[in-house]
Amino acid sequence: MSLQDGHDEIVLAVEAVSELAMRVLTRNGLSSAQAEPLARAMAAAERDDCRSHGLQRLLGCLDTMAHPRFNRNADPRPQEVSAAATRIDADFGYSLLAFERGLPLLVQKAQALGVSVLAINNCFHSTALWPEVEAITAHGLAALVMNPSHSWVAPAGGSKPVLGTNPIAFGWPRQGHPPYVFDFATSAAARAEIALHRRDNKTIPVGWGIDSDGNPTTDPQAVLSGAMLTFGGHKGSALATMVELLAGPLIGDMTSMQSMDFDAGAKAAPCHGELVIAFNPALLGRDSIERNDQAAEALFGAIAGQGARLPSERRYRARLRSDAEGIRVSRALHDRILALAGG
Amino acid sequence: MSLQDGHDEIVLAVEAVSELAMRVLTRNGLSSAQAEPLARAMAAAERDDCRSHGLQRLLGCLDTMAHPRFNRNADPRPQEVSAAATRIDADFGYSLLAFERGLPLLVQKAQALGVSVLAINNCFHSTALWPEVEAITAHGLAALVMNPSHSWVAPAGGSKPVLGTNPIAFGWPRQGHPPYVFDFATSAAARAEIALHRRDNKTIPVGWGIDSDGNPTTDPQAVLSGAMLTFGGHKGSALATMVELLAGPLIGDMTSMQSMDFDAGAKAAPCHGELVIAFNPALLGRDSIERNDQAAEALFGAIAGQGARLPSERRYRARLRSDAEGIRVSRALHDRILALAGG
Repeated sequence: MSLQDGHDEIVLAVEAVSELAMRVLTRNGLSSAQAEPLARAMAAAERDDCRSHGLQRLLGCLDTMAHPRFNRNADPRPQEVSAAATRIDADFGYSLLAFERGLPLLVQKAQALGVSVLAINNCFHSTALWPEVEAITAHGLAALVMNPSHSWVAPAGGSKPVLGTNPIAFGWPRQGHPPYVFDFATSAAARAEIALHRRDNKTIPVGWGIDSDGNPTTDPQAVLSGAMLTFGGHKGSALATMVELLAGPLIGDMTSMQSMDFDAGAKAAPCHGELVIAFNPALLGRDSIERNDQAAEALFGAIAGQGARLPSERRYRARLRSDAEGIRVSRALHDRILALAGG
Repeated sequence: MSLQDGHDEIVLAVEAVSELAMRVLTRNGLSSAQAEPLARAMAAAERDDCRSHGLQRLLGCLDTMAHPRFNRNADPRPQEVSAAATRIDADFGYSLLAFERGLPLLVQKAQALGVSVLAINNCFHSTALWPEVEAITAHGLAALVMNPSHSWVAPAGGSKPVLGTNPIAFGWPRQGHPPYVFDFATSAAARAEIALHRRDNKTIPVGWGIDSDGNPTTDPQAVLSGAMLTFGGHKGSALATMVELLAGPLIGDMTSMQSMDFDAGAKAAPCHGELVIAFNPALLGRDSIERNDQAAEALFGAIAGQGARLPSERRYRARLRSDAEGIRVSRALHDRILALAGG
């Protein structure tokens, strides 16, 4: 079955990865409407070589779908809050279907008014934010997206977990280039990364977390049962707190502490809200769109031109490679996934 | 003149500090309309023990007013871009008068629509952002504010200065408490802090900057003529880039590189744009304002309750002290300032 001599991997087209994920999700009871954008996001992650958000997420997805409050048939519908604001209640399904159904109103309002927000409520979240950011930039808009998670992270100067890993993602549309996109956790490291180190019996760098007595440690298990730390000290901690507030109480949804309580030990993906903000450079740009684009490109050129990497460059290179050559998936993972799909 | 025995300092009421600054600014040709909010912001900084944004800024202000493009009589008027967006051209005066004149429309639109932006263009900027954030939270709104500066900071992985010190400030309104507010540079340290170390012949910590060959250094002069670094590695660098884009090309204004060119060696305060975003929790909060406030307060309680500091706590304590006891100003600084005011 392997298309590569001497390698224990198989090569699949992006669509085949998406179909495989779709089969696993629907065979396990998720509605096609819910499964379809999730399967596409996993295939996009494999394509961009973001393996941690790829097919291996399927196992965690099944755990999430087992949460007593998870709704396999959630059918979210957007509501207009105002001319600039849209809300969509994900109704305890996955975030992505809600995002995709809210997107047209978000875009239309930002195009009309220069700025617009989409508040997603009650969503289980197991995908990265960059696919959403890219979907917004495809309409010529800039995007800022954030969400809380579970209270795993201690604030700067503290030792008890209160904050989530709270990602912030941003996108800027570019003519003739993929968008400028970043998407990072405000924790020093991803929780999955720490769990991988535990599995592989490896130590973690100082700065990723502390033990339950608040002492720095390189033991991944001590951090998982103690507290993770934010990136960037008190500044990262302040940003993580902002994410709690803007994607939580601002939009009538849970903080990471509340989401952890809601999980009640089920170890599902975090359930929470998400705040999506879109900005329209064409309307806010003072009738000098071309000059503004040139200024942005000069900035990117000055960064990349000195050998510094723009945030999503590695992903975009992997994307080109995958589109040309297909996606390599380890046979062991593929076999495990086929079993989840009922063979 | 000193009210303190044995100390070389005098004690002034907040209003007296403001009047002193006002006198210096107007005697040096700044219009009363421009000077008034700037003098108030300096007095507020002294009151909150943020001395670097207090009276000592007056010397730099006079340098800025000497920039050939600075407009001492700028009379900014807000323009409505849309139901959600306001623009105000500061017309090459200081940022604060433009902010104060744009504020009523920003607030009114956010109250009506849930979100609103104020784009300030062509402003010289020498004040902190927290006074603006506090002014917005006083209306029960959350605020996110940012601006570029001059290209003094290298991107992560690079060695040449491209980015500004690019502050981000955020505020959340609280019932019965001063607002949750942070305001920080996305550079590892403030440029003024590095200059102070140079003046005092002190070394700076590793991580604040690099020399002109891109090597880490603890020599402040080497960093001032080399490049500063962002906080938080590639994440801080990505955030600083976002600030460039959102408060620059998005609103038709300059990046930090362009602002540095515009300065043309005058060493004035940076001239650039500023993006102000306001969010209305009452409209976006799903009719559960009280529960949302409780969730936010539980978050603050969990942070402060474990001995971690909320970002503006030190300022608010200083404020209480200053309001009760007045502001202590060094006699040497006071004498220097009196001289600037013509005695």
